[in-house]
Amino acid sequence: MSNTAGQIIKCRAAVAWEAGKPLVIEEVEVAPPKAGEVRLKILYTSLCHTDVYFWEAKGQTPLFPRIFGHEAGGIVESVGEGVTHLKPGDHALPVFTGECGECPHCKSEESNMCDLLRINTDRGVMIHDQESRFSIKGKPIYHFVGTSTFSEYTVVHAGCVAKINPEAPLDKVCVLSCGICTGLQHHPRLVYFLTFCLLVILFSDNSVSFSCFVGLGATINVAKPKPGSSVAVFGLGAVGLAAAEGARISGASRIIGVDLVSSRFELAKKFGVNEFVNPKDHNKPVQEVIAEMTNGGVDRSVECTGSIQAMISAFECVHDGWGVAVLVGVPSKDDAFKTHPTNFLNERTLKGTFYGNYKPRTDLPNVVEKYMRGELELEKFITHTVPFSEINKAFDLMLKGESIRCIIRMDE
Amino acid sequence: MSNTAGQIIKCRAAVAWEAGKPLVIEEVEVAPPKAGEVRLKILYTSLCHTDVYFWEAKGQTPLFPRIFGHEAGGIVESVGEGVTHLKPGDHALPVFTGECGECPHCKSEESNMCDLLRINTDRGVMIHDQESRFSIKGKPIYHFVGTSTFSEYTVVHAGCVAKINPEAPLDKVCVLSCGICTGLQHHPRLVYFLTFCLLVILFSDNSVSFSCFVGLGATINVAKPKPGSSVAVFGLGAVGLAAAEGARISGASRIIGVDLVSSRFELAKKFGVNEFVNPKDHNKPVQEVIAEMTNGGVDRSVECTGSIQAMISAFECVHDGWGVAVLVGVPSKDDAFKTHPTNFLNERTLKGTFYGNYKPRTDLPNVVEKYMRGELELEKFITHTVPFSEINKAFDLMLKGESIRCIIRMDE
Ligand SMILES: NC(=O)c1ccc[n+]([C@@H]2O[C@H](COP(=O)([O-])OP(=O)(O)OC[C@H]3O[C@@H](n4cnc5c(N)ncnc54)[C@H](O)[C@@H]3O)[C@@H](O)[C@H]2O)c1
Ligand SMILES: NC(=O)c1ccc[n+]([C@@H]2O[C@H](COP(=O)([O-])OP(=O)(O)OC[C@H]3O[C@@H](n4cnc5c(N)ncnc54)[C@H](O)[C@@H]3O)[C@@H](O)[C@H]2O)c1
Ligand SMILES: [Zn+2]
Ligand SMILES: [Zn+2]
Ligand SMILES: [Zn+2]
Ligand SMILES: [Zn+2]
Repeated sequence: MSNTAGQIIKCRAAVAWEAGKPLVIEEVEVAPPKAGEVRLKILYTSLCHTDVYFWEAKGQTPLFPRIFGHEAGGIVESVGEGVTHLKPGDHALPVFTGECGECPHCKSEESNMCDLLRINTDRGVMIHDQESRFSIKGKPIYHFVGTSTFSEYTVVHAGCVAKINPEAPLDKVCVLSCGICTGLQHHPRLVYFLTFCLLVILFSDNSVSFSCFVGLGATINVAKPKPGSSVAVFGLGAVGLAAAEGARISGASRIIGVDLVSSRFELAKKFGVNEFVNPKDHNKPVQEVIAEMTNGGVDRSVECTGSIQAMISAFECVHDGWGVAVLVGVPSKDDAFKTHPTNFLNERTLKGTFYGNYKPRTDLPNVVEKYMRGELELEKFITHTVPFSEINKAFDLMLKGESIRCIIRMDE
Repeated sequence: MSNTAGQIIKCRAAVAWEAGKPLVIEEVEVAPPKAGEVRLKILYTSLCHTDVYFWEAKGQTPLFPRIFGHEAGGIVESVGEGVTHLKPGDHALPVFTGECGECPHCKSEESNMCDLLRINTDRGVMIHDQESRFSIKGKPIYHFVGTSTFSEYTVVHAGCVAKINPEAPLDKVCVLSCGICTGLQHHPRLVYFLTFCLLVILFSDNSVSFSCFVGLGATINVAKPKPGSSVAVFGLGAVGLAAAEGARISGASRIIGVDLVSSRFELAKKFGVNEFVNPKDHNKPVQEVIAEMTNGGVDRSVECTGSIQAMISAFECVHDGWGVAVLVGVPSKDDAFKTHPTNFLNERTLKGTFYGNYKPRTDLPNVVEKYMRGELELEKFITHTVPFSEINKAFDLMLKGESIRCIIRMDE
């Protein structure tokens, strides 16, 4: 595989030429990785709201032509100078956020928000030299969040690549894609970033695709429900289902799903949700409904909607004295979280999470192991698969709300 | 001492006959404790904003005549039926909030907000029979937050009394009063409560008066700064000074005081504050000033002002990735805490505390021990003492802002 090392590789990529227009499969040139970079052969990728959001480019500065895609799994083809933790042939997950290992965040046990490699949705080039590694007849094509996985080969900063267990079962199509999602935020210090989901891991031949969910991490790493406790999950999309899965794995006994669409409950049952509330069915705030159901409030709540009203309800529905609420959903630019400070003084805690508080290189391999041990079920997140040549179908499915995750097989 | 057991005791108490009018020392009758109650001889008491707030009665339903006072130390005179953890002669601290030991909050390791004995500022009677134990010529006088320590004898629910080490040095006047304070809030479930400070302990003859500070607990129990970390303390009143003392005890290396009154810095240095910011000296939000001073934000912040603007700044000035902010100040009824939810998604945590998260009966004895071991300095909080006969002077000192704590000696 390494006889391509140091060479430009020509391969297929799905290029977005314009905002909102179908992607076009093109032959692109992929330059070799420079210092600190890795070139990956992508085997499986999937689509999430984040790709769609930036492809639609309604909320931000458009950057086109661009290669989208951030949930994928593949194999290291070659590595650039100074890369020591990866070698050709390694099974790997590219991630839109990274771990440089050197900054205060990477050195802190508590943070995963690497100063150097934190997601940047505005940048369409590599950090190393501010240039693109993709081109068509010499004309550069922009990267997306450092991953651009809608290409058979892509170049990624080595700090954004998690090496995973190559023993993961390769004989089934089990790719699954994270249940996260997205949204654009203007960071006080001018970094745009997203709360993403996750990543699809890919295995060479037979394809285990994998994904770690922000929702999963939000529950397991941040909300930390105790066995036997109650958890409310706001929003039963992919992220919320992953959050519910996290609650199930943690041993919560009451998992209360909250969604504006009652039909979501049926699917959610597979993910451990055993009670359901539709705020529209009640003529009082849903936090009051939940407080009544639970004798004062749930022990934990995880908000996976992006709706500011749901964020407020998710906070206010936790029990005083010990309740913890975790925000995952990405709000609109002008939203304001608003509550009476007494709700805090009554000993409620509010936290948010970026990428489920997982450190990508450090923690993802362990999430893969959790799947390998059967503790985490991924197959149920995958509702569709399409060949790469039909990638626009995955967009349609997402836009119609029919898929949780649709896996795109790169070799077809 | 127990020859008074079962009898009505006649003694002196400072009675508030009307809102805002000077207290009058009267002879009152104090009934014996009923089931689950304790009668205490109060040796020292002190005054905090809470007493003044309810005495002024500008914000709530007035309840007069009433005996105020909630920070005190004394000795158990007699106990009612069924009281097993206290006996006559025990040194004890009455507390405005309690620990019934049976409710979900008392059973939870995380909460101190007892369902039965949580502070109730509206109730002027004992829980047991909804009657007062105080009277003047048979006419009842109302209790205040279950403590009413401005009386030589008072009756308190046994769940609101912490038994403390009688070996505490009795030969100095070391009473100190908590550095907390107050404010009225309307609880969703119709319980009025306050964030208080806390309590003065008293020792029989030579008087160690003692106090545990909500500010202290807010820092030590809730913010939990690590050694070498940075802590911002908003508001350098008694509560903020206690919060700073907690940061000093925890080994924080940068303790940044924030106050609108620059002269507060001088005093605050004694409590570990080694940097100071006056928001008025800057033409940008104080959270930005602090972020610049600290390369992105402080590790922890504790808000002790009651100002909603300070609460928002205290939250927004903590570092992303790991910062934790703790609210202590009691806001106004109509205040709204407002921030962009992105500040949470960037992995900041916001908590509030009631009574510094101390469980009164369980934890206060240990705070006394901390003082006994010299780890906690209390003397520096006490700026004045007055005899009981001059209790109105303590009100004047508080209203003029001249005192941190003024100890009232009951035997004079
Ligand atoms: N910015 C974007 O382009 C964009 C688009 C879609 C989703 N997102 C983000 O994705 C996250 C969820 O991801 P997903 O992939 O699971 O999305 P999803 O759209 O599949 O699921 C969200 C779910 O939340 C429910 N919901 C919406 N408002 C609600 C409310 N007020 N109360 C209860 N339920 C409510 C919806 O009915 C839906 O089932 C959200 O955090 C959101 O910020 C962002
Ligand atoms: N409701 C009441 O009657 C009442 C009265 C006084 C204090 N309190 C409460 O007491 C708490 C503090 O107790 P204390 O005994 O230490 O009070 P204090 O009045 O002695 O100290 C408060 C300090 O905060 C400072 N401050 C006020 N607004 C500020 C701002 N925006 N930024 C920075 N500093 C600011 C003041 O200058 C003062 O030094 C507060 O939480 C408040 O809610 C309540
Ligand atoms: Zn880093
Ligand atoms: Zn995604
Ligand atoms: Zn209780
Ligand atoms: Zn007080």
